[in-house]
Parts: sequence; C-alpha cells; structure tokens
Amino acid sequence: MPSLLKVTIFGASGYVGAELTALLCRHPQVGTITYVSRSLAGQPVATHMPALRGCVNSTFQAPSEEVFAESDVAFFATPHGVAMNSANALLMQNTVVIDLSPDFRLKDIAIFEKWYGQHTSPELLPQAVYGLTESARPALKNANLIACPGCFATAIELALIPLVAAGSVNDHIIVDAKSGVSGAGKRTDRTDLLFAEQTENFKAYAVEGHRHQPEIEQAVRQFAGHMPPMAFVPHLLPTARGLYVSAYVPLSADAFSLLQTHWADELFIDVLDDGLPEISHVTRTNRVQLAARPLPGGITLVIAALDNLLKGAAGQAVQNMNVRFGLPEDMGLSGARTV
Amino acid sequence: MPSLLKVTIFGASGYVGAELTALLCRHPQVGTITYVSRSLAGQPVATHMPALRGCVNSTFQAPSEEVFAESDVAFFATPHGVAMNSANALLMQNTVVIDLSPDFRLKDIAIFEKWYGQHTSPELLPQAVYGLTESARPALKNANLIACPGCFATAIELALIPLVAAGSVNDHIIVDAKSGVSGAGKRTDRTDLLFAEQTENFKAYAVEGHRHQPEIEQAVRQFAGHMPPMAFVPHLLPTARGLYVSAYVPLSADAFSLLQTHWADELFIDVLDDGLPEISHVTRTNRVQLAARPLPGGITLVIAALDNLLKGAAGQAVQNMNVRFGLPEDMGLSGARTV
Amino acid sequence: MPSLLKVTIFGASGYVGAELTALLCRHPQVGTITYVSRSLAGQPVATHMPALRGCVNSTFQAPSEEVFAESDVAFFATPHGVAMNSANALLMQNTVVIDLSPDFRLKDIAIFEKWYGQHTSPELLPQAVYGLTESARPALKNANLIACPGCFATAIELALIPLVAAGSVNDHIIVDAKSGVSGAGKRTDRTDLLFAEQTENFKAYAVEGHRHQPEIEQAVRQFAGHMPPMAFVPHLLPTARGLYVSAYVPLSADAFSLLQTHWADELFIDVLDDGLPEISHVTRTNRVQLAARPLPGGITLVIAALDNLLKGAAGQAVQNMNVRFGLPEDMGLSGARTV
Amino acid sequence: MPSLLKVTIFGASGYVGAELTALLCRHPQVGTITYVSRSLAGQPVATHMPALRGCVNSTFQAPSEEVFAESDVAFFATPHGVAMNSANALLMQNTVVIDLSPDFRLKDIAIFEKWYGQHTSPELLPQAVYGLTESARPALKNANLIACPGCFATAIELALIPLVAAGSVNDHIIVDAKSGVSGAGKRTDRTDLLFAEQTENFKAYAVEGHRHQPEIEQAVRQFAGHMPPMAFVPHLLPTARGLYVSAYVPLSADAFSLLQTHWADELFIDVLDDGLPEISHVTRTNRVQLAARPLPGGITLVIAALDNLLKGAAGQAVQNMNVRFGLPEDMGLSGARTV
Repeated sequence: MPSLLKVTIFGASGYVGAELTALLCRHPQVGTITYVSRSLAGQPVATHMPALRGCVNSTFQAPSEEVFAESDVAFFATPHGVAMNSANALLMQNTVVIDLSPDFRLKDIAIFEKWYGQHTSPELLPQAVYGLTESARPALKNANLIACPGCFATAIELALIPLVAAGSVNDHIIVDAKSGVSGAGKRTDRTDLLFAEQTENFKAYAVEGHRHQPEIEQAVRQFAGHMPPMAFVPHLLPTARGLYVSAYVPLSADAFSLLQTHWADELFIDVLDDGLPEISHVTRTNRVQLAARPLPGGITLVIAALDNLLKGAAGQAVQNMNVRFGLPEDMGLSGARTV
Repeated sequence: MPSLLKVTIFGASGYVGAELTALLCRHPQVGTITYVSRSLAGQPVATHMPALRGCVNSTFQAPSEEVFAESDVAFFATPHGVAMNSANALLMQNTVVIDLSPDFRLKDIAIFEKWYGQHTSPELLPQAVYGLTESARPALKNANLIACPGCFATAIELALIPLVAAGSVNDHIIVDAKSGVSGAGKRTDRTDLLFAEQTENFKAYAVEGHRHQPEIEQAVRQFAGHMPPMAFVPHLLPTARGLYVSAYVPLSADAFSLLQTHWADELFIDVLDDGLPEISHVTRTNRVQLAARPLPGGITLVIAALDNLLKGAAGQAVQNMNVRFGLPEDMGLSGARTV
Repeated sequence: MPSLLKVTIFGASGYVGAELTALLCRHPQVGTITYVSRSLAGQPVATHMPALRGCVNSTFQAPSEEVFAESDVAFFATPHGVAMNSANALLMQNTVVIDLSPDFRLKDIAIFEKWYGQHTSPELLPQAVYGLTESARPALKNANLIACPGCFATAIELALIPLVAAGSVNDHIIVDAKSGVSGAGKRTDRTDLLFAEQTENFKAYAVEGHRHQPEIEQAVRQFAGHMPPMAFVPHLLPTARGLYVSAYVPLSADAFSLLQTHWADELFIDVLDDGLPEISHVTRTNRVQLAARPLPGGITLVIAALDNLLKGAAGQAVQNMNVRFGLPEDMGLSGARTV
Repeated sequence: MPSLLKVTIFGASGYVGAELTALLCRHPQVGTITYVSRSLAGQPVATHMPALRGCVNSTFQAPSEEVFAESDVAFFATPHGVAMNSANALLMQNTVVIDLSPDFRLKDIAIFEKWYGQHTSPELLPQAVYGLTESARPALKNANLIACPGCFATAIELALIPLVAAGSVNDHIIVDAKSGVSGAGKRTDRTDLLFAEQTENFKAYAVEGHRHQPEIEQAVRQFAGHMPPMAFVPHLLPTARGLYVSAYVPLSADAFSLLQTHWADELFIDVLDDGLPEISHVTRTNRVQLAARPLPGGITLVIAALDNLLKGAAGQAVQNMNVRFGLPEDMGLSGARTV
C-alpha cells in the first residue's frame, strides 16, 4: 500500500474544482489536500462547499511558492493559460501534473494557438499524455503530465473510437451534442447563463467551430488510426449538469457489437443492450452510457451520455490519478446514487 | 365584416385545448365558444384555466348532439381517433372542421393504419387540406376539413421545403429534434413525464421510428416536389414547451438565401441573418425562427425553433381559421411577449 | 380619443424594460416609443427582444438631451439612483414620469437614505403619488410623478390593506414571501443567480431586513389607516418569474369577506372562493390571485400570487399610465395566456 | 464485527426505495438485499436504477412468503397500509422492521384512523419506536419495530425540539414549509405532478390540515416535554428534492445557542453560525442545516433544510439501522457530494 498522496487542487473554487474536492476528500489513498484559489484565498473551503462540511476543514490558499512545494499530485481545474505557467516547476520537483484545462491537450502548437493564444511551455507538449483513461492506460502508468480530455471530447471519443478503429465508418459523421450549463463554468461575464435566461430555454452555439473539435480529431486519430470528416454542433441544455451526444455515423457494421467488444469489461462504460441513455442515469456518477440504433439509409445513431463535471472532468481526472499511482481504478469513484 | 364565428373546441381540457381557448376567447371575430371535455363536463372552464378568468365564463360540456348543432367551426384538440368519428356529421351541417390530431393528415390509408390503427372515415381523406399555412393558403381558403400539421412536422417542413424545392439537396438529411414535455400531452399514464423524472434530464426516444415521419415526407413531397431520404430522431427536453430542430442537410446552395426568398414577407417566419434561434425567443408566440450555417463537408445546419403548442398546434390552427374565413391572417395571434 | 402617446423607456434593456416594451409596443394608445439603454445604445431593440420582432423596429439610444425632449410619458425601469436625477427636467417640460425604481416611493427621506444612500431630488418627494393602482386611482388621475410599488410590496399590500382597514388585525403579522429570480434583475455581479446555482435550489435571503419593508409599512398606513407590526422574510424560488406571499395574520374577522368586499369588481384582482393561488396561474398576466384560510389559533393564512415583472412592475406601471391619461384601465393589459 | 446483514426492501420501486437501494447496496455491513416490488416483479433492478449498474444485480420480487423468510432487517418504503399487514409476521421471525411509512408513527389510534383509515395491527403500536435518530438513540438500540419520521416532521422536529425543551417558546409557532415534488412519490394519479405543470410554478397545499401535523405534535411532546400551538402550511417547490422549513417562533431566548447546545457534536446536523441554509447545500446528503435569526417583535426565524428522500426518509432509516445494530452511525451515509 503506498503512503497517502499529498494533493494540490488549483482552481478549487470552480465547479470542477468542487467536484475534485468532493472526490478527493474521501479518497482512501489521499492525505492532505491543498486548495488553491486566488479569488477565495483565506476563506474556509467548507463555506463555499457546504455539502462537504466534515470532509473539508482547511482554507483556500493563494497560489504561492509554498503551495508548489510538496505535492505528489497537482490538479489544474483552471481556465486555459494557467497550468502552462506552473507545470514545469511542479514537474521539476517530481509532482505529477493532472491538467483538466486545454493547455496540454493538443500536440500541434499551431492549432492550440489558433484557438487559445500563445503557449508558454510548448516544450512540455511532447511528454503530455492525453488522458482518455480507457484508451490510454499504458501511457498513463508512467505519465508525469496528464492532459485530461474535455467533456464533449470524452463522450464523442468513447462513442466513435470503436467504430472508426474497426474501419467501418464510410463518410461524414455528424455530431449533435448537448451540454448542461455548468459546462461553461461558474462565471459572471455572460448574462445568458443566468437562471432567468436559461430555464425553459434551449439553443445551439459555437456553430462556426468549437475548440473541442481539433482535440477530438487528434484523439480519434491517435486511438483509432484515422479520423473521418466530422461536423460537430454543440447546444446548451437547461440543466445544471449532464452531456448528451447524438452521433449520426454512416456505418457498414453493427455498432452495438463494436462498442460492446471494444469496451468489454470497462467498469465505467455501459453499452446498453436495452433502452436508451438518459442524462439522469449518469449525472453524479463517473459512468458513461452508450447505445446504438440503425436508422434508415445506412446511418447509425450512436448516443453517449455522461456527467460533464465527473466522467467529463473531475471523475476522469481522479481515474487517471488512480491509474498513474497503481491504485484500483475505481477507488473513490464508485459512490452510488439514484433518482 | 363577417358576423362573429360560433366555435366549438373538442378536447378543451388538454394543453392544446387550453391554448386554443386563450387565443379564441379574445379573438375579435369569434363569438360564442363551446368547450367540450368528457372528463371535465359540468365544471367551469375558468377553474381549470385560472389565467383566463374574465375571458372564459362558461362550463365544459360533454360531447352530445347539442354541441354538434350550430358551430361555424369545430376544433379538435383530441387524441387520434376522435375527430374521425365526428367530422362527417359536422361537415354535413356546414361546420368547418379544423383537426389538430393526426386523423386526417395522411393521404395513404395504409400508412395511417400502420401507425394509428383503423380509420373510421377514410372517405373523407381526399377532401382534407393539410394545413401548413404558409404553403397551403390557396387550398385553405375553400377547405371544410383542415388537418393541421404536427408540431415536429411544422418545424421540419418549414425548414426543408425551401431547400428541397430548389433542387439543392443532394443526399440523406439528418434531423435531430428536441421537444418540451407538453408535446406528450397532459397525461398520467407515464411516470417519465413527472417533474421529478424530467428536471435535469434529457433523452432521445422513439428512435425506431416516429409517426410524424410519414407526415413530413408526404408534406415535403407535396409542397417541394420530392422528398430526399431523411433520418429523424426526437429527444425530450426538460422544458414545458418549445421545440428545436437541428437539421443536417447536404446542400449545394446557400440555405439562407433559399429560406429568405421562399419565406419572404411571411409574418410568422423569421429567417435570422444574425444570431441563432433559441426556444425562449419563440415560446408563447406564433413565430418560427429559422437559421442556416454551412458546416464542413458540404453539409448545412438548418435550425428551426417554435412553440409546440402555438405555431406547432393551436396558433397555426387559428391562423388556418383566419385564412379560411377571409380574416387577417394574424388576427388574434399577434400578442407580444418577452423574457 | 386622445392622440397617441409618445413614450420613453429608460432602462429598456433589463427584464422590466423588456416587459414594458412588450406591453407598450402593442398598446392601442401608444405611438412612438424611445428605448433608452446606455449599455446597448445603437443596437436594434429586436436583437435583444427577439420575441418582439415585428413590434419593435428602432434602436436603443443613449440617454441624451434629445431623448428627454418630447415624450408625454417617461418610464424608468432603472436601478435606484437614476430616475431621481432626470425627473425634474422631464417634469419641467410636462412629461409624466412613471418611476418603477424605489427613488420616489418613500416619503421619509431619512428612511430612503438609510437603505439607498443620498437622494438628489428630495424636493420632488411630496408630489410623488404612490401607484398601488387599485388604492390610488383618485390621486393618479392628476399625478405627474408616479412611484410604482415594488413587486413584494404590491402583493403584500393588496393582501393586507383590506384586513387592516377593517380594524381586524390583532397582533404581529408574519409574511413569508417567495420570488422568482428575475426579481433580482439581469445582472452579472452575483454567481448565485446562475442557472447552475439556482436550479433545484431554494433559500431565504435578506433576513436581517429587506428594503421593501418600510415601503410596505408606509403604504398600508396610507391606505388602511395604520400598520400592525410585521416580520417579512423573502426567499428565492427556482423560477424565472412569479411571486408568492404567505401571510400569517392574527385576525378576528373573515378574511375572505374582507378581501372580496374591498376588491369587489377589480378587474385584475381575483379573490378565490375555491382552490389556492399558484404562480403558474398568474405569470405572464397582470392579475393577482388572493385567497384566505383560517388556521388553528386565530391565525388566518392570506396568500397572494402575482407576476413580479407584470402586476409587480411593468403591468402595474402601464395600468397607472392608463389611469393617468383617462384610458380604459385594462388597455393593452388584457392579453390572455394559459398553461 | 457482526456478520453482514440480510436486508429486504419493500416498495423498492419508488423514490425512497431507490434511495434505500443506493445507500444499502454499498453499505459495508449489508450483505444480500432482496428488492420487493409488486409492480416490477421479475424485472432487473438495474433497469430501473441505471445509475446503480454494477451495484445492483438482482431482480425485483413479488411479495411472497419466501421474501419474508430470512432477513435481519426489512425496510418498508411503501404507502401507508402495507407495513401494518406484514410487520407482525416479520417480527415473529426476529426480523427488525424499519418502516418509513406512517403506519407506526402515531401512538393514538384514533388520530391515526382519522387521517389514514383503519389500522390492522394496533397491538404493535406500543412497541414501535419513533425514529428521530438524534433524539431516540437509547430506545433505538433495542427496537425491533422502528417508525421513521416523515420528511416535514424530521425537519420541523429538529428545529423546534431544542427551543421547546428549553421552555422558551411563548406562543403560537407558525411553520411555513416547502418540499420538492418527489415528496409526493412516483405516482401517476395526479396531473399536478407533471413536469409541464410544476416547472416555473409554486403553490401552497393541504392548508386545511396536513397529516404530518399530529406526528410533529406527538414527537415534540415526547422529546421536548410539551407542544406549543402550531400552524403548519406546506408548499410545493419546483424541484425534484429538498425540503425547506421557515418556522416563526415567539421566543425569549437565543435560538442559535439553544440549537447549537442541543445538537452539539451531531454529525448530521449543521447549526450555521454564518450564512443561511439552502436546499442545494443538503440535497443528496444526510445532513440537516439549521439557522436562526431574530426578527422584529420577539419572533425568531428558525430555518431547517434537508433532503426529503435522505435525511427525511432513506438516510435517516439507514442511520436508525446503524444505531440498532451497533454500527458506526454514519456508516454508508458519509458520501460526499458538491454542486
């Protein structure tokens, strides 16, 4: 049994940071946790996460040399542009960096800079392991810099990789994706995220191109050998959490068999042989539901549902930590819930 | 000016019946209204539609010979299988029948009976006019039996007709459609419509085939000359009302121009030259929002948003009544609202 | 028939401004409308109120001398501190000022300044008419400066005035009040108004004292002769709109009779003799629902429900305009709606 | 360490049954679980609780002699009238009965029968232990028949007992209570629980008297010595879960001190010294948040918030099982969550 891990969470005050806190504060192999938040420095963590009273007893700290000093693992639940500035210092002192932001996802620096602006640590990109857990386990076991996939990317990649890998996709894929509002973060610079705007509403957005697209293309190419053309349109759901992907795939094989075979024995992937995925089936869990149905005209509908904050973010990040440190992959992630 | 119309609403106790009531009780050319509901017979209408106090003063009546006697127009906001039994008697005494149920939508009796069971008045099908108002005005002016389109059908047809009519659709169309819960009606035989099931949820349904599909194919063929192959997948939104269609169309022309030209000067159709449709922009109005955006790979995203209970049901039915009786088409339909 | 009114709306970009726009743009006696918004100046109004396309055709204007020049009526749907700076100039050129902000509600300048800070036009307070329409008609007919009640205040005053006026309230009143999120305005300086925070949530707030309290006390004293002690606790509902008041009144008389008698023949006040108020019965209408039920121990429950943006703000403001200009009181306000 | 408990859940298909399942299927001291549901007999449990895949592997069983045979504990998450018919047989074979229905809550048979109809096992009432865990521990340790409190009752009793026990309540208490929709159960006999009825809605109900009232009076009398007069008005919130109580208590002492002292060191009761309870802080946990604030006029506002399905039902039931079997009281109940 390894000794307890010392963990630091950067960006602990956001939605993903809160989920990381909830998972890690009761993780059997995690010891002390340092919560870093520039905006809430000095305030008790429990004040901002009242559901975790009894589990969290410390205060948020400002980023400083001290907090960089001694962790076994550092999670970044920060906006893009933060992890890239701190990763090198952490790696130098043997802290494993698990980044949930986009900073280290893309291998092609030009593509990164098109979507996100200048990268300050491009020299680290080659060693970053893209952490789609179920596809990346061998590399994750020795990774010191793990780039966790985006929430849309996780769902779409898990749905498409088995089909593309089988060489069965004939033509353009269309991905109609829907996400709950927490996917946009806990931000106050947009009125469209207000309750009064979003209740009883639904809309498409970013139809001119979403920055998850190049990430998806790179990952499917990496894990399935090539990437068919894909159109990807995100929509905003009037829910706090949850993500639902309806992919329309021109396919010459049985999608259910391909999915079931590819993800056989995966603890967190349910390939449904009956019924259809629903967001309420997966929210507040680390599970993904996948299903497939043939439609007229040689097209197969492939559906993926997951919780954008868990399997799409904090849950997968902890899953990656477990793989990296040789722990049971579901440790701290198997909490049941219903309704 | 014609004298005031006598109107009967069958199925007045459901969601669509309530919307018809709201529109007709303040319509300047509507006089007495008879509200028919088997389940609520004898009860005051205002008790069940408290927002309409002051506008509705009568009681629900059971269906009887009396209520069939003297109307100029009869609306059916009933489940399938009701209008087909009463239409003939009403037509015989010169009552115009405006049916919002599926009973008279399909011309092919075999297709109807596949989805809905036996039809008791197939001899009336030839004279029924399919009431997609903007495309059907000439026939509507003399129609005595009007079959109003379904809610999904209205949105999809208004989005596709201009593109198909221009001969510009090359291949399979994929329609990813989403509807609010009221689309399923005010029913208590399904637990999945309960608030506690649907809040914070989202799911696909009827992926093996939806009964609106043959209606859509027939209508596009009628108004656009032919029908390309189409896959249509409906989803259930956690909203009371609103319907959103994201159609993926392989197109060799500029969709915005086609939509704008085809629907030029239409009062209730907004072809957006800026921004994207949102459900909250159209709920509680009779308006449709359309928009188009080219995606990679020769595919165009065409979006349609409308209120399933208004433009998708009661609003379009009243619009059809206005056309039929030579009234201004927006009479009683132009009520403004915001937020 | 008077000639059409020229209207200016200050603060047209907020929730209340949008409701005012919706009501006024189809009001039969309103002509040109000037929309003032500092933040949206130069942008088309319809872009920000897509449900009103066809009804609004102009652009937002910055506040300037020009927009002050020629209106018959100016509405202020602005935060506190704006109307007080412009009212005098408008009154000087015979523009009737209808203020929906708190600036002119309180007669006691000390109380105003305790809650809101310095008042720049205290000399105007004496002539301001407090616009609880049903109680204030005589004064409203000649008012040039109308201070519209707050949303909580409207509901509570309509519930309490008949009981207090009858001399039947014996002791402390407790008011447990709940409001939808739009009551806080379209603001981005608070994370607690985000959809992801508010869905599936409920909470009390401002329990140390709410600034509507002195307004309520002043108004009940004005219209009912005196004011019993009252404790008032507001709560935030996970709805966009709607306001619900449960008042617990130690009463020695029959509340239903008192309410029914006091508000007899009021078009917008429904005193229910059967059933209980619901928010969904009144949202998107200018109606108030009132009901009363005796509880054990000599306490009567009095309930009031209304739409905070309509009867609690924009609707009552237009009602006041109608009274002031001798128009039918429900002109532009009777639009029916259901569901 | 005791051997693993064999558990039977009657009424496993409802909302409370699902929560019991979620808690018990990962409880470290629970072994085999039998799921009883008349309506779903023969179907896999995981089909109806997809979030629990991997945790539940059996099928629902019809109630039969077999399922009565061998449990250490039987939970009843059934409507009233079911547990009373089976309790005796279970007790005879040494199965501990933990009833979440009202069947064994009231000691006075006349009061029970006024609200619920005939009781078929009145002879068992004297031995039933009312399971408000924090107040009932000594009796629970030897109880074979445990009657778990209702959800409203749990919140109100935890808020009032410390104040009443201190002899500090002077007069009538007013309790304004609000519950999410799941409190009404997973039923299809009421249209008012449909999503389309409840979203954006709020209403009072049962104002003529709620059947939790006599239970509350009995419990406060039992645990605090006497019961002051109380008026209790429930309301329905547009949330799936959560319960919020605003109690207005005429009090001559400091409520915060009384609460904090009375519930000192209670793991699941948070007496807030800062901030106010929110439903989102406690949903999906077994925690209660309490807070108190003095209002004008000698009245103190006491707020309680909890999850109606957990601390108000399944959570407290498992807590009672833990106490009864000498297990750590929070075993299986400490799962953290956020957002």
